[in-house]
Amino acid sequence: MSPHPSAPRIRKSPEQVRSAVHQAVIDLLSDPEGADLSIPAIAQRAGVNHTSVYRRWGSRDALLADVVTTRLELDSPLTDTGSLRGDLIAWMRAGVASIHTVEGRALIRAVALSMPSATPARGERRQQFQRRLSSIDNIRQRAAARGESPPPLEEILDQLLAPLYIRAIFSIDPPDTGYPELLVDRLLDDTRARGAA
Amino acid sequence: MSPHPSAPRIRKSPEQVRSAVHQAVIDLLSDPEGADLSIPAIAQRAGVNHTSVYRRWGSRDALLADVVTTRLELDSPLTDTGSLRGDLIAWMRAGVASIHTVEGRALIRAVALSMPSATPARGERRQQFQRRLSSIDNIRQRAAARGESPPPLEEILDQLLAPLYIRAIFSIDPPDTGYPELLVDRLLDDTRARGAA
Repeated sequence: MSPHPSAPRIRKSPEQVRSAVHQAVIDLLSDPEGADLSIPAIAQRAGVNHTSVYRRWGSRDALLADVVTTRLELDSPLTDTGSLRGDLIAWMRAGVASIHTVEGRALIRAVALSMPSATPARGERRQQFQRRLSSIDNIRQRAAARGESPPPLEEILDQLLAPLYIRAIFSIDPPDTGYPELLVDRLLDDTRARGAA
Repeated sequence: MSPHPSAPRIRKSPEQVRSAVHQAVIDLLSDPEGADLSIPAIAQRAGVNHTSVYRRWGSRDALLADVVTTRLELDSPLTDTGSLRGDLIAWMRAGVASIHTVEGRALIRAVALSMPSATPARGERRQQFQRRLSSIDNIRQRAAARGESPPPLEEILDQLLAPLYIRAIFSIDPPDTGYPELLVDRLLDDTRARGAA
């Protein structure tokens, strides 16, 4: 819950500030009336000074990007199932579960909002994208170490992550059973077919 | 450009109000500093009374959904190329072009923001989704009338629309050439393989 605007501010450690600010972003994004996502509104909800938010993150978009990176990483277990197919299916199952939570939906909103509008700095966005996908990249590296041939990161983006996100955005539930398997097998068959061609 | 807040308000027709409010939403979503997407902020930018925005749309989310439906429909040409494959490729080419525009990116943000957070009304969301995809559904119906077997709408969502949206969100450019063809052929091959199974 957000502290009352006039509540006394207790001195917080940097880690407490970070955690309170992150939670305020999630709360505002989950709030149907939370239209104001400016730094002052976020700081007020977190019960911290807005100057310390500016000092630490620089901009609203950088803050949103930090929230997304942190939370998505926490949400991504890195089970080693012994095969690329098994690892990808485990990762997708976790993803399917997370888009059914309020926080999961808030994170998708944060991703879309932290997207650049007019003038994206391509290099920086690509770095962010790769950080966000670092758990998938770990799965790829583990597969390569086993002698498997993992698909390129962009194909995993198009064929696994994209359907999950779009269904979260449109609130279209994935099929109840076999959805992670369907998408992973389609991706891997496609990679094999092109590898063999 | 937004009128100055203290500019005199000229009486607008309902169609002018709608168009000014839609444009204000796009402008605010495209503005890197446009953190406040509340109805009063949108009304001020449009130079209209916020009470008329509440009266017409009821809520911020309903307004965003109206903007998305209207603009995405306008952006979707319905070329009849004589085949399902050709129609889908033409539709995807238009989509790839639109995600490179400021307005296209603003619309993706609007889609994500108008997504429900806590308590989605499933039936209503599905209707909205189908309205948004009505141009794709027209392509499917035309294909069926020709005797072709179009894939289900949800597969088109997962395999064509999803990669486009996710790339807009992450600012990851699609490959320069052959991207619409790659995705459409993968979708149609997959449909044929399952139809034959």
